[in-house]
Amino acid sequence: MTLSTLDTFRKQYTPKLPTALRLGLAHTAWSEGEKAEPKKDRDTIRSAFPNTYGLPILKLQNRSETTPAAKPLRVGVVLSGGQAPGGHNVIAGLFDGLRSLHAESKLFGFTGGPSGLEKAKYEELTPDIIDAYRNTGGFDIIGSGRTKLESTEQFDRCIETIKSLNLDGIVVIGGDDSNTNAAVLAEYFRAKGLATSVVGVPKTIDGDLKNEYIETSFGFDTAVKTYSELIGNIARDARSARKYWHFIKLMGRSASHITLEAALRTQTNAALISEEVEAKKLSLNDIATSLADIVSERAAVGKNYGVVLVPEGLIEFVPSMKSLIAELNDMLAHHEAEFSSLVGDTKTAWVSAKLSSGSAGTFNDLPDNIRLQLLMDRDPHGNVQVSRIETEALLAELVERKLHDRADFSGSFSTQRHFFGYEGRAAAPSNFDADYCFGLGYTAAALINGNKTGYICYIRNLSKGVDAWEAGGLPITMLMNMEQRHGKPKPVIEKALVELSGPAFTEFAANRNDWRVEDAFQYPGPIQYFGPSEVCDGVTRTLELEGR
Amino acid sequence: MTLSTLDTFRKQYTPKLPTALRLGLAHTAWSEGEKAEPKKDRDTIRSAFPNTYGLPILKLQNRSETTPAAKPLRVGVVLSGGQAPGGHNVIAGLFDGLRSLHAESKLFGFTGGPSGLEKAKYEELTPDIIDAYRNTGGFDIIGSGRTKLESTEQFDRCIETIKSLNLDGIVVIGGDDSNTNAAVLAEYFRAKGLATSVVGVPKTIDGDLKNEYIETSFGFDTAVKTYSELIGNIARDARSARKYWHFIKLMGRSASHITLEAALRTQTNAALISEEVEAKKLSLNDIATSLADIVSERAAVGKNYGVVLVPEGLIEFVPSMKSLIAELNDMLAHHEAEFSSLVGDTKTAWVSAKLSSGSAGTFNDLPDNIRLQLLMDRDPHGNVQVSRIETEALLAELVERKLHDRADFSGSFSTQRHFFGYEGRAAAPSNFDADYCFGLGYTAAALINGNKTGYICYIRNLSKGVDAWEAGGLPITMLMNMEQRHGKPKPVIEKALVELSGPAFTEFAANRNDWRVEDAFQYPGPIQYFGPSEVCDGVTRTLELEGR
Repeated sequence: MTLSTLDTFRKQYTPKLPTALRLGLAHTAWSEGEKAEPKKDRDTIRSAFPNTYGLPILKLQNRSETTPAAKPLRVGVVLSGGQAPGGHNVIAGLFDGLRSLHAESKLFGFTGGPSGLEKAKYEELTPDIIDAYRNTGGFDIIGSGRTKLESTEQFDRCIETIKSLNLDGIVVIGGDDSNTNAAVLAEYFRAKGLATSVVGVPKTIDGDLKNEYIETSFGFDTAVKTYSELIGNIARDARSARKYWHFIKLMGRSASHITLEAALRTQTNAALISEEVEAKKLSLNDIATSLADIVSERAAVGKNYGVVLVPEGLIEFVPSMKSLIAELNDMLAHHEAEFSSLVGDTKTAWVSAKLSSGSAGTFNDLPDNIRLQLLMDRDPHGNVQVSRIETEALLAELVERKLHDRADFSGSFSTQRHFFGYEGRAAAPSNFDADYCFGLGYTAAALINGNKTGYICYIRNLSKGVDAWEAGGLPITMLMNMEQRHGKPKPVIEKALVELSGPAFTEFAANRNDWRVEDAFQYPGPIQYFGPSEVCDGVTRTLELEGR
Repeated sequence: MTLSTLDTFRKQYTPKLPTALRLGLAHTAWSEGEKAEPKKDRDTIRSAFPNTYGLPILKLQNRSETTPAAKPLRVGVVLSGGQAPGGHNVIAGLFDGLRSLHAESKLFGFTGGPSGLEKAKYEELTPDIIDAYRNTGGFDIIGSGRTKLESTEQFDRCIETIKSLNLDGIVVIGGDDSNTNAAVLAEYFRAKGLATSVVGVPKTIDGDLKNEYIETSFGFDTAVKTYSELIGNIARDARSARKYWHFIKLMGRSASHITLEAALRTQTNAALISEEVEAKKLSLNDIATSLADIVSERAAVGKNYGVVLVPEGLIEFVPSMKSLIAELNDMLAHHEAEFSSLVGDTKTAWVSAKLSSGSAGTFNDLPDNIRLQLLMDRDPHGNVQVSRIETEALLAELVERKLHDRADFSGSFSTQRHFFGYEGRAAAPSNFDADYCFGLGYTAAALINGNKTGYICYIRNLSKGVDAWEAGGLPITMLMNMEQRHGKPKPVIEKALVELSGPAFTEFAANRNDWRVEDAFQYPGPIQYFGPSEVCDGVTRTLELEGR
């Protein structure tokens, strides 16, 4: 592997650590805060996690005395789920943190995600390997995967791996599901009398794993800044060429944090927020009408161009679409053979006749290609693949229909559609993500050294500069609630959706009318690593507004 | 307009000028080189341009004496065609250059492209306006347009505008067509006894306007670096997730310079070069086979992922597709009524029966959706809209078919498709483009001050550092050849396609086999403005390899 010029220089970047960690972990001690419990479903969760429930919130403090680890620490690390910028720095921080406790500590990377732990596929991460990946994007140092560790058979195989490697701890770098699994694994190990710690690190570009301690999940900063670069460039192009409306879909299946942050950074003419669509029970027709209003208003002042942001998961938050999709999944599951025997256009008519009248109306209002996509493109379980639906194209088409029906619309409406996701997930981490991730890795090392289990790392005060950052661990159980999974109630980490009363959405709602007709676009440009601190080290608008 | 943090800092960037221009244009003089003629079609071109043919190549030299302009210069500027990063800096350079000759010089921007000149739509560009746009992307300072100035009626209206503003010169910032028009306008003005100069500036992200003097057109550097950032990020994601083949279409309708440069920068597993496809007379089937070979080879070593780059114009370089499209355009033009009367699937059969047997075979081998696209999605003249064809999706589908037919292929093949164009056209210029464009603008001011007309600006020695840069003007007629346009021979600037014997393609061809199976990806990362010179000021690989 030869490095690009930028990567070569970025290797030399030394991430900034929170004050308490700067002398190395031998100079730190844990202070215990209040015992933490979930907001609701306490009894159910307590009974599911008898050994790891109600643990105290922990904070790392520095001290003058030094207490190195008595023996080398042996730790395994797993990357789980989609890429997020900074994953390599979590691993580098973990490595350096373990070495700061004992110079002969060893770190093993389980390859290809959680299945590597189950199947004992791993490699030792040596200083050379770690150095080659510092401050780089991607998860390619050990790969990632989506295998869920859920059954006791899987857990027992993990225990075999752990025993064979004699590990003091496992670090799971993942999103809400992966951290839920980490908690279950931690509980299982304790129940089995295994001393190995399990520690989680909050990763997801979607930004939906957060609370007052985990102020943001890592990767969100870099990914959203990368998307904002592109959105700004497109907005500048739109304003220059004055001929296209750009419909831009952004990653974020469950929550619209990415779209909200990108809208705050780039001030596009419109941005849809799934959580608002759901709260206001908006139909696709309502959404199309409101977008057509903006297009009309701009056309009236000679602006036949603009930019609209659309979150990937939008459709599932439109109540009428949600009902339609649920009915379709049910119907196609029960009448698979009959449906398969139909040919061509008859499928659409057959389905339409079988739907409830409300869903049939929703279905029949959809453009042909979307109707076909709903019927044809199903996953191995026979379910509609919502993520495959080209929401940006669907909305563009619905808006076009609306405009066509408006006698008073005399503008033009040509569209370009974009989807940004893979462009940002494996980007090289911004200075913020490089620092934050390195600190999280260090914190994970401290938790394992303290034999803490069932914890997730946090670093807080993120908008206040690294000197004010505080690091510690939260019991994962405190983040949980009970949800239905595969028809059964399960304790899982609650996803943090956009709060409509929160400061980020409030700021957006207060300003969006000013961005409709005026070209108030902001062009954030590409992430900078070397320039003035204002340009290189800024946090997201979301963190800034939340005052964290 | 409030500026983003990056834009605020970038405003303060002072572009570096070629040595000869650094004391201002009053300290420069022109040196005349050889009289320049086109490579071919000399007689025809001479007779089309009696007043502006055979002019000498000009070079700017500095000198100690100073000769300010006797009176303030009055100049108009036009942006023509698609956005390219750095356009605003050409205008800023032009403005500063004119002011360096006389502090009261005035610059007028014609709005909305060439039609602004014809219709006398303009605004005076004051220092405040210029300052707000320095080092920014986009063409929004005055907008752009695609109106072609071709008829004498149009030219006469331009003359009225010019007389009403009493202009010494017009600067046309555009691609090959726009510069051809600039030459025609220059000739017309001289024939009419009008002293106003017309000067062109070579703009296009496609990179197809170049020769030994115009080593690159402006905007190419920034656009291709922006695309390469995204391609690198996607490659890193592909290598981390190990589950998708990414088919990435890149802008570049006529020439594959962008794809070639992006391939050299990112070292993807495959990159198609239209000029090679044409030279080797490859069919879609050949292309699909060669891509399927790469997919198979990688699958054999467990790599069910990769990245393929596809130039936007590819299809028109596939001889069999070119014939098919020509036949379709002809057929649909002659049988419009009959074709329109057909419904649904019968159109395909009707067309297939009317095509030559070769083209019918090509047509029938295409996936359904592409066949429909060819028939349905036609431009106002009834022609197939080649640019709308989703070549990246077409290739992905053809490769999938190939793999399906291969008994020995046991890998998986899932694809993601991307198209990058608008993401880079209006990006803020790299340091290179900021400097280069500013210098081109300065040079344009010098040409007008020297009452030179029918010239296009150049700056050369671009890969040797700004201190070695030389600036001057080329007679546009020397770039011309005769081509058929709308059925008639016309003198036009010859497009510079990728030369298969040139150093850039040679480098690519010599290395591409090493990039097929090995993951030799390079991750260039985002454009940097403030860091080490190696990171911020590097030229394209194409320029580097061409030793210019």
